[in-house]
This record gives sequence, C-alpha cells and structure tokens, in this order.
Amino acid sequence: MGMVGGGRGAFIGAVHRMAANLDGKIELVAGCFSSDPEKSKLSGEDFFLDPSRVYTSYEEMAEKEAALPADKRIDFVSIVVRNNLHVPVAKAFLKAGINVICDKPMALSLAEAKEFAEIVKSSGKVFALTHNYTGYPMVKEARAMVKAGKLGRLLKVVAEYPQGYASSAFKEAAPSKIANWRMDPNVSGVSNCMGDIGSHAENLARYITGLEIEELAAELTTFIPGRSLDDDGNVLVRYQNGVKGIIYASQVSTGDENNLNIRVYGTEGSIEWHQEHPNELVVKFLDKPREIWRRGNSYNGPEASAFTRLPFGHPEAFIEAFANVYLAASEAIRDELAGKFPRPEGYDFPNVDDGVAGMAFIEATVASAKNNAAWTKPGH
Amino acid sequence: MGMVGGGRGAFIGAVHRMAANLDGKIELVAGCFSSDPEKSKLSGEDFFLDPSRVYTSYEEMAEKEAALPADKRIDFVSIVVRNNLHVPVAKAFLKAGINVICDKPMALSLAEAKEFAEIVKSSGKVFALTHNYTGYPMVKEARAMVKAGKLGRLLKVVAEYPQGYASSAFKEAAPSKIANWRMDPNVSGVSNCMGDIGSHAENLARYITGLEIEELAAELTTFIPGRSLDDDGNVLVRYQNGVKGIIYASQVSTGDENNLNIRVYGTEGSIEWHQEHPNELVVKFLDKPREIWRRGNSYNGPEASAFTRLPFGHPEAFIEAFANVYLAASEAIRDELAGKFPRPEGYDFPNVDDGVAGMAFIEATVASAKNNAAWTKPGH
Amino acid sequence: MGMVGGGRGAFIGAVHRMAANLDGKIELVAGCFSSDPEKSKLSGEDFFLDPSRVYTSYEEMAEKEAALPADKRIDFVSIVVRNNLHVPVAKAFLKAGINVICDKPMALSLAEAKEFAEIVKSSGKVFALTHNYTGYPMVKEARAMVKAGKLGRLLKVVAEYPQGYASSAFKEAAPSKIANWRMDPNVSGVSNCMGDIGSHAENLARYITGLEIEELAAELTTFIPGRSLDDDGNVLVRYQNGVKGIIYASQVSTGDENNLNIRVYGTEGSIEWHQEHPNELVVKFLDKPREIWRRGNSYNGPEASAFTRLPFGHPEAFIEAFANVYLAASEAIRDELAGKFPRPEGYDFPNVDDGVAGMAFIEATVASAKNNAAWTKPGH
Amino acid sequence: MGMVGGGRGAFIGAVHRMAANLDGKIELVAGCFSSDPEKSKLSGEDFFLDPSRVYTSYEEMAEKEAALPADKRIDFVSIVVRNNLHVPVAKAFLKAGINVICDKPMALSLAEAKEFAEIVKSSGKVFALTHNYTGYPMVKEARAMVKAGKLGRLLKVVAEYPQGYASSAFKEAAPSKIANWRMDPNVSGVSNCMGDIGSHAENLARYITGLEIEELAAELTTFIPGRSLDDDGNVLVRYQNGVKGIIYASQVSTGDENNLNIRVYGTEGSIEWHQEHPNELVVKFLDKPREIWRRGNSYNGPEASAFTRLPFGHPEAFIEAFANVYLAASEAIRDELAGKFPRPEGYDFPNVDDGVAGMAFIEATVASAKNNAAWTKPGH
Repeated sequence: MGMVGGGRGAFIGAVHRMAANLDGKIELVAGCFSSDPEKSKLSGEDFFLDPSRVYTSYEEMAEKEAALPADKRIDFVSIVVRNNLHVPVAKAFLKAGINVICDKPMALSLAEAKEFAEIVKSSGKVFALTHNYTGYPMVKEARAMVKAGKLGRLLKVVAEYPQGYASSAFKEAAPSKIANWRMDPNVSGVSNCMGDIGSHAENLARYITGLEIEELAAELTTFIPGRSLDDDGNVLVRYQNGVKGIIYASQVSTGDENNLNIRVYGTEGSIEWHQEHPNELVVKFLDKPREIWRRGNSYNGPEASAFTRLPFGHPEAFIEAFANVYLAASEAIRDELAGKFPRPEGYDFPNVDDGVAGMAFIEATVASAKNNAAWTKPGH
Repeated sequence: MGMVGGGRGAFIGAVHRMAANLDGKIELVAGCFSSDPEKSKLSGEDFFLDPSRVYTSYEEMAEKEAALPADKRIDFVSIVVRNNLHVPVAKAFLKAGINVICDKPMALSLAEAKEFAEIVKSSGKVFALTHNYTGYPMVKEARAMVKAGKLGRLLKVVAEYPQGYASSAFKEAAPSKIANWRMDPNVSGVSNCMGDIGSHAENLARYITGLEIEELAAELTTFIPGRSLDDDGNVLVRYQNGVKGIIYASQVSTGDENNLNIRVYGTEGSIEWHQEHPNELVVKFLDKPREIWRRGNSYNGPEASAFTRLPFGHPEAFIEAFANVYLAASEAIRDELAGKFPRPEGYDFPNVDDGVAGMAFIEATVASAKNNAAWTKPGH
Repeated sequence: MGMVGGGRGAFIGAVHRMAANLDGKIELVAGCFSSDPEKSKLSGEDFFLDPSRVYTSYEEMAEKEAALPADKRIDFVSIVVRNNLHVPVAKAFLKAGINVICDKPMALSLAEAKEFAEIVKSSGKVFALTHNYTGYPMVKEARAMVKAGKLGRLLKVVAEYPQGYASSAFKEAAPSKIANWRMDPNVSGVSNCMGDIGSHAENLARYITGLEIEELAAELTTFIPGRSLDDDGNVLVRYQNGVKGIIYASQVSTGDENNLNIRVYGTEGSIEWHQEHPNELVVKFLDKPREIWRRGNSYNGPEASAFTRLPFGHPEAFIEAFANVYLAASEAIRDELAGKFPRPEGYDFPNVDDGVAGMAFIEATVASAKNNAAWTKPGH
Repeated sequence: MGMVGGGRGAFIGAVHRMAANLDGKIELVAGCFSSDPEKSKLSGEDFFLDPSRVYTSYEEMAEKEAALPADKRIDFVSIVVRNNLHVPVAKAFLKAGINVICDKPMALSLAEAKEFAEIVKSSGKVFALTHNYTGYPMVKEARAMVKAGKLGRLLKVVAEYPQGYASSAFKEAAPSKIANWRMDPNVSGVSNCMGDIGSHAENLARYITGLEIEELAAELTTFIPGRSLDDDGNVLVRYQNGVKGIIYASQVSTGDENNLNIRVYGTEGSIEWHQEHPNELVVKFLDKPREIWRRGNSYNGPEASAFTRLPFGHPEAFIEAFANVYLAASEAIRDELAGKFPRPEGYDFPNVDDGVAGMAFIEATVASAKNNAAWTKPGH
C-alpha cells in the first residue's frame, strides 16, 4: 500500500500503519507523508521505504505510482491527511485507477460528499472509510442480532461519545496545536465535535441498526472560550419506523477518555456495547438472565468470528478493530485487482454511502443547532 | 406515625414501612390503608395495630387523630396513595395540624402543586416528599463535591432513567392492573413515564447540582399500543449558567431494571453515579487516576456520613436511602413537635419546592412534546 | 424479642436490631445491653423499652422473662455479646425455655460447641446462628443451582474474604479497642482472622455446595506486630467427593473493604458471587454466553424469591440479608411457640450444626498452621 | 526475523507474527514452520517468503542463515515449537551466533533450564522468553509502584489463573489433539496446568514484586479422566521477607476464559490487575478513595508509557503486550548487532533467569504435590 499523510508523530497515521501491518499481508511501499518534502523523506526512512517511492506531493505520487507496472505499483492508497484534503487526494488516486482507504469524515460538506460519491461509483474502484468502531467483532455480533430480529421490533437507540481531553483547555493559556486545526472550519469542516466523534456515534448506530435518520433536533455548544466550532453536542433523533434516538458527543466531558457507548432497545431484547470494554456485548432479553456475549467463543456468529484473531479471554482491542476495516477492504481490493469487484453479496466495511450519511448528519446537526434545535431532515 | 394507603400487596407502602421501621425510632400506630374498609381493617391486623386506630377514610383519620392528646396522636402521616389523592390527603392532615411525608409526584398539575405549596408554607408543618434517590449517601457526597466547587464550573448534566418492565406489554393480550392506573391521566397526571420516573431523574440532577432548568425541548413517545400516556421520553435541557443537559427516561428499555444514572461534568472534574451500584461514586479529575469513592469510609464528607449506617464494604441500598428521607424528615418533625421548626440551616430532605419544580418539569415536557419539542420554560 | 449485648455504639447489635426491625414483625421489648448497669439502662432508653425489662445480668433476664406469662415474655433472645459469652448466655436462655438467635462464631472451642449442640438438640428450642451472608437471595439461588445439578459434578471451590481495615494498625502507635478484644484468645478464641471472617467464607462455601471438609492445610500469619492471634490465613481444602478448595481470609488486605467472594466450579458450569455486589450472580455455562442472574426477577427460583423484598433494580443489601436470617428463624420460632417445631422439611437458616462445623474448621486451621500446614481433619 | 514452528493453523505462532509485525520494524524473512517439509513450504508461501529461506529442519536453518552475510541473515529467531524442543532449537541458533526469542516454558526440566542458562550467558547473545503478560503497560506501572515503595512493605500476593477450556473434555468421547500433546510428559514436561499457565501467574507475581519464592506447598489435581498430568493446581507460597502468597491455576474452571488476575498487598496500599481488562490498574491506598489508573494518561510513569502505543481510551490488549516483549527484546538485539550488548541498566523483557525460576517453580510444585503438599524449596 501507499500512504498520504501520517508522517512522524502523527497519531492516526501510526494507527493506520499498525492496522495494516498486523496480519502481515499488507506492506507499506510508497508514501507522501508530509507537505514538507524533508519531513516526508525522513518519514520514508522511518518506514524503510525505497526513497524513489517517497513523494513530495500526492499528485506526483498518484501519477508515478499509476505509471508503474501492475505488479510493482501500490494496490491501494491509505489517506490520513486533514479533513479538507480527503476528497482532493482520494479523487486524484481514483482518477489514477488506484483503490482508496480514507480516514473520516469523508468530506468538508455534504455537497462535496455527494459529488465525490458519484466519482467513486463511476470509478469502479474500492473506496473504504475508516469508521473503525464498526470493525469490532462484538459490534458485528450486535448487528447480526438486530438483523436476525432477536431484539424484536426496534424502539430506541442511545449512542453516546463523551471524551474529556479538551477540558485541559479550560486551564491553558494557549490552546494546543491539534485543537487549532480541528477548530478551523476551513480545515475541519462545519463542526468539530460532531464532525470528529459525533459522526462515529452516528455511524455506529447506523451500522448496528441499519436505520436511516428521518429528522433530528440538535443543540451544539462551544464551551471552551475563543473557539469557533462546537465541542459538545446533544441530538434528539427520529429514525425510520418510529424508532427514537439520542446521539450525543462531547470533548469536554472531563475525565472521560474515549467513552463511545451504544444501547439499542427492541420489543424483545436490547444490546449494550462499550468501546472501552470491546470484547463484551451485553444482551438483555425480557425476563431472562442478562447475557454477556464474549468475543472468540463458539457461540459467536460468523459475522464476528470472521473478524476474530485470538481465542476467548485474550483481549483484542482498538488496533484489531481498525485492522478489520483493512481486512474487509483488502478482500474488495483483491477482487478489484482480479477484475471481480464488486461481489454481489457486498463487503463488511464502511463505504462512500456511509460517508455521505455522515456528512448529511453533521450538516443537519449544525443547521438544526443554528435554528434553535428545530427538527431538520438530513439531506441526501 | 400513621399511614394513608399502602395496604396489603401495595409495593410502595411496604417500602415506606420498611424505611420507617429500619432505625427502630418510628412506630406505625394508625392508618387508613384502603378505600375498602374490610381491606383496611385486615391490613391493620397485618401491622399489629389497635383496631380503633384503623380508619375507613382519610378525613376521619385526620380528624380523630387530631382529637387525641398530643402524646397519643401520630406525629406525622405517611401518604402512599395514588397520585391524584396526594394533595387532598396531605391538605387534610396539614389542616388537622399533622406533619406529612408524601410519595411523589406531589400533585396532578403544576397549578395544584403551586397552590398546595402555599398551604404547606402557611401551615408551619413539615412536608417531605420521598424523592428517595437523594437519600443515598454517595448522592449526598456528590452534591457536597459540586457545592464545594471540586468539579470547577459545571458544563453538562446527563441524567438517565431507563426501565424495561413495561416491555412485557408488547406480548400481552391485556395490560396489567398497575399499568392501568398509571396510564389514566385522571389518576396519574399528564404524563406516565416522565411523571413516574423522569421526575426522579430531574430531581436527582437538581439535588446534586442545585441548578434550575431554564428551558427544555422534549420528545415523548407512547410505544405500547392502546395507551394514552407516554412510556418513553428524551429531553434536551438548558440549565442556568449555560449548563447543558440531557434527561431521559423510559419504561420500554427492555431488559433494564431500575437503571437510574447520573453524570455531572465540570471544567475540572466530573462525577458519575449508578443507582444499581449505589455505594460507589466515580470521580474523575482532569489528568488524575479515576477515583472510586465508597460509602462508609473516613474520607467521606459529613453530608454522606450522617446518613450512613454500616461500615464500608457492608453494602447499603434502596431501603436505607429511603429511610434516610424519613430520618431527615424526622429531625424536622421532632423540631416541629418541640416548637423549633424550621432550623435556620435547613434540612436535607426533598420538600415542597422540589415538588413544585418536579411538576413544572413534567408539565413543561408534556407541553414541549405537544409542540414538536419546541423549547419551553417550566412555569414557576 | 430480647437482646443481650449490643448497647450504645456497638456495631453488630445495631445491625441485629435493624435486621429485626425491617419487616415490622419483631419488636424489641427487653434487654441486657451491657455488663455496666448504667450503660444498659441508657441503652434501654435509646430503644424505648419499659425500664422494668432492662436487666443488669443475662441470668436475671433469662429468669425473669421466663417467669412472665407466655403472651408477655420474649419469644426469643438475640445474643450479640463477645465470643466467649455466646455459649453461656445461650445456655441460660435455652434452659429458661427461650429460643435463641446468636451471633457467630458460636463458641470458643470445638469441644464447647459440640457440648452446646447437644444442649440445643435436647432443648427442643430454636437456635439460629447469624451467618448472615447465607441470607442473600442470590446466594440462595446459587445453592439451589448446585442442588439441582446445573453445574454438573462439582470440582473446585474458591472462597475468599479479604478485608483491609486492620492495616491501619501498621501506622498506629497503639492498637484500637476493638482490635484488642479480638486479639485476646480468652475472649475471641484460638483464632482472630479465621474465627471472625474465615469462618464466614467456610460457611458460605458449605451453604452453597453442601460439602463437608475432609482435611485442610493452613498457613496462618500474624502480620501486625505485637499481636498474638492471626490476621491472615490461606487454606488448601480437600472436600468430599474429590472436590478441591481454597479458602482465604485476611484483615490486612489493605484497601479491601468486606470483599467476600465465592466461586464454585462444576463440570458443566460455574457460579461467582461477590458480597459487595450482592444482587448479581454470575453464572457461566460451558460454551454459552455468560449469564448475570439478578435478584427480583421472575426467573429467580423459589428459594431466592422467598427472601426478596424489593423488585428488580431496587438493590437490596447487607441489612436485608441479615434480616433474612431473622425471617427464616422467625418461622421456626413461630412453629415452636405453636408447638409445631421442627417442620419436617427444615428451615433455611444457619443452625447449631453450622456452628459446630465452623468451630471444627477454625480449630483445624489453627492446628494445621501450628503443624507447618500439615493436612488436618476437622473434628466432629 | 526467522521463525521455527508456528506453521498454518498454529495459534501461538500467529500471535508471535502479529506481535512482530505490529510496529512495522520487524520482517519475517526465513523459517522452518513444520517438521513436515511440505507443510513448512506452504506456510512459507502464506507468509510471502523467498522459498530458498524456508527450511526443512531447524539445524539446517541455523546453519544456512549463519552462513549468510551479516546484512542478509536474520537478526534473531523466534521459537514457537512444542515445549520439549525449546532448548534444542535455541541452543542451535545461539551456537550459530543468532539471537533468540523463545516461547515458554523455557525447558522440560530445571536441570535442562540451568544448563541452558549457562549456554545463554556464555553466548553473549540475546535470549528473551515470551512471558507476554509482563508486557502490559499497567503491569509495568504496578511493578514501578512496588519498586518505588508506594505500597509500603509487601505482605501478601494472590495470583490466580483460572481457565475453563478443558472442561469440554468432560463431555467428549475423545480428547482433542492440542490436549494430547499438552498431556504428554515427554513433550510438555512434568506438569500441564502449572507448566502452561501456573508459570505465567508465578512469573507475573515475580515481575511485579521482585520477590523470590522460598518454599511452597502445592496440591495438583487431574480432574479429567484418562489424563496423566495435572489440570488444576493450588499453591501456598512463602516468599522472601515473610511475604505470603497464593498461586493457583486451572484449566477446568468451567466458563472462565483467560482469567489471569493478580493482587499485591502492602502495609500502605495494594494493587489489583485483571488480564481481561488490561488497561486498568486498581490501586487502593489506606483510607483513600480507590484509584483506577488507566493506560495512556499523563500520570502514567515512564515504565508504562514507554510501552504504550495508543492514547487513553483507545484500548490496547493482548497483541500489544506480546509486541512489547518483542519491542524490548529488539532493543537488546539492536545493541547486540551493534556490539553494545548488554546495556548496564538492563532491559525490560523476561530472560533466561525468569525461565530458570519458572522451571524451578514448576518442578517444586510437582515435587510438593507428590509429597502430599509438603513444603518444598524451589531449586536454583
């Protein structure tokens, strides 16, 4: 694979590389790791790359890689740049005939996302979006349960994503660098908290339940002085079929870490999953003992088992879930390289439709919040 | 004490009696346990009462008890009748000069609550409302922390109260009896779920934070077919001082039991408390190890310690918390009997102001929900 | 009831009174609360007793109560004195024809226990020992599961009871008063830690599994300088039928509170119960999702349900479990007063046989420990 | 790196490869994956190896790799064969001048282990033993706390490792293949359960506390019919300095998964760590709120932080801990290749001394168990 972004010191780039490395089937062979050529070069050395395949611009990389013979060029590119460059970089590689795995959120706006979705679809190439939390086996187990109707008719969804890391800003003289670009609408998009993590909560609910949002009422808040974008948001949701929901996210939930949780309630049962204890899925059926479904057991369904590497009791975690997006996307990429893409039964990774839904969600929350939490239908 | 309501088989009456019995300082000596005289009489026998003090109407009871000499008559009455009778019964006893401990919600409407509050205040008698969850020692610890500013400036409150017991109705031919009166607006009031349990979540948030609600936007739902009142509600809240909140409650959160939880976030720390594990308070300060404050330890503050009966590790639970409302109210009643009511420093039990705030909350949620979740200010 | 011991400030006496009070069916009417007549009298006032029934010696109390007419005298006495007086006081009341509920450990030695057991059996009176942890409903559920063979053939039992309260002695100049008598063999018996809490762990294992100990190998330690009795003990156990066990207890497990836990493993499943979260029973069947059985649900068996006061999700705890020993003993006492004791099917409270087994366990651990952890058979 | 063992379908080989791959700094380039040449060849293809470096015997591999120029040959070999081949294979590579990372237990007997330790020490090469549980950051945090004296003087250690996977044998007609070799003393050594997992518990206690075992008393049991080696063991331990311990392990703790837990108690505080929730370390200081130390926070010490890849709240797990053994060993290997091995300050990975201590522990438990749990001093 190749990589755009993610040079020395970048958190998410390192995660993508660990995820790609894990199974020993993907090798990083080319990259453009920084807009600073020197930094890109040094990062290439860190990763033991042939210097001739460390590029100084993504355009150059797309062009030159495409010009290599099929058995030499990268099979796909992994895009881990700032939000505003996701679409431009992805477009360049798709145009060059190269498959893409891209960090989220997919685009800066719904309009950009929709236009880009057309490009992806007409490209015939693979596009995967790393909504990594859907990669956890017990999330897949939850989805399979819902699909099989084990919870009965769905009634309610509560997806929450409180983080507290930004609260350190309350006592800082000057905000940190990472906060800076996340708070810049030109780079980050119309929302910070909803764009960065609210969209994960939304995607997780979407993945498990398969439900589309009909309308939502959102309250976004900027608690940290001097910032222009939200750091907290609470959303009432009306899903299809009369299902009600709450989605909330926060970066100022002091003391919380990466506390993504979801509960889905149906007429006959409910499930509960906590990202910080990802190997367990709590399942509650009416008038029965509560059940804890644990990863790696013989009673796990095929959806979870296919994405499980270790036996029960040997915990898997964030990297493995992230690697599962790569694993599922790799299957599609192999199919594409073999001229067999797409399979009729589909693939189990977040795709461009999820990206469009995510952008529609983000824009709708911002629009609703500007309109005093008026009910707002996400665009399509 | 005396009791109105709570005869054989009534859940909440039994709880009140256990709470009153626990410390061996309150004795049930009179009662009117049912509108059915025979049932009232049999209940009196169950409780070893002198038959002459088992009454057939609350009016008779108030009148006859008041006519007894001071050292013979009840010091207070405990009211555990259906919602619509709370105010009429309480009025009768206050008028007869007898202190009152009353189940919640206090009244059928905000108007009734406000009028009743005037009566209480001019009576000079004690009126306590059994918002029992405020009786837990670790809830008192949380309140003391907030008051002492340990969490910094408050930012956000999330209070949730999902229950799942009503989901059995989805597979029942005929709804159960208890559901019946709870679903009858003439008995239960304008809301079922918000009135019964949402108001507990609201009161718990109010007790811990001391914040008033400025406005709210509510979505109420009736999921169970054939019912006229809500069984689920999600509320966005704007508190004083820019604090944001979510309050939600549900009786169709299948598989949940009595899952009242609260999280309060400030700029410097946050707390988290779960009713089903009431002896622990999770405290999270920025950049410090998470702390679990446990009941009965020397580091507990005086507010919690004053309401603690057992050493650490010997768990206390629901009955003890309920008994703490009785314990605190008893102090006021003793003061009243000694002509020293009220103490200038106040008492630590839910009172008529909490009852008015609760009714204002309930009515505002119903009004907002009817108005498509429009922002609504609770009346005062 | 009457009470011997448990005056002002005594922890366990207060617990017994709360347990007795809870259900409103037992009334404290007589007592000898202290060997100091003045203190006994003041305690009697605290408990609103008729001064004529506050006694200055237990012998006087047994004699005078027995002389009262049947409908006036106490139905039973609750004994909460120091260990060395359990048997003398109990004997006096049994001799006077009065039923007894007694705190544990039952006696100072196995010989005393065995002799006393004969007295109890020939008395025809009720004797209940407050091994209170067997009163928890989910412990009863566990016992019923084992009895019904749901775990298959039993293999292993791990019962642990670490407390940490005594660790404060490591930094104290002078040990506290309570520690003093507990460390005095003439008052406390041959063991402190094993006698006080190890015996609870042993009794809990015995109650749930029904297994007798064939032999044990014990290591007892006195960590706190200047003490003569053990404050920590680790025991290997060989039960009947080849079942293996570990029982350990400690008072210097710094930071632990009252951390009594038990795990019982069989060929087909296992259970796990934690006293500090008593409303849950973890049940693990081979190749099935882990189950959390929770108190108060319709799926609970009759053994647990009979000792449940509150609906699910409304936690019960230590006092209720303690009250369950009183509840079960009360049934026997009612039978005895009605001349129908004992029922053929028996009762569900710890009795004199448990007391003998407990003393046999304690003495065997001490003997084994003195003999360098040699395998030792408990006497019978 | 090269690998011996771990072909297609082998669990632990796959774990070693994932651990090695994770950070993108180690590349598998040679191997002898099976004693069956065809299987070895196919495994080599699975791992994209140059066929010329897929060998049919480990002797051939050691010889031929050693003959390659320094910049071509493997820097180290990873040994994941059955227990009885650990020492022979390791010797061959050390003799060939190649560093070794080896699975545990190190040897078949203490005598073999001690002899091998001499070879390692005189070789000047790196030898790392994958006692992987010491790789968890919060285990390193625990060790640092003990070393810094934060728990005061140590009193007691409880290390437990119950698994339940073997309980399926109770209902099987024929035991499974993996169980077979584990139950063969010629392949597995003198103990199955103690050798396989008891030794992990022992090593974890040793790593965190730094204590040597003075003597132990062990009860080993074979519950599964037809087996010759233990599947359950309970051990009383006397450590240096009067510290007491319990170590137990089981493969028939039905329903448990990989439930390795440790508690270490000192005079001033205690720690508790659970392998199945590895990102948390419970810390309990006398008379203070319980603390939960969580991985990835700024308050973590340098020992934990050096082995942390992801920010707080993004859980790490088994693979990362395993990779940390590779990470630490890689530093030593880099030093060795640069002629700078060993560093005076040492390295943080399990080494040959741990292997000897582990074998001494295993043999002592077996000897004690054969002698009716007599106190036995591990050999040195």
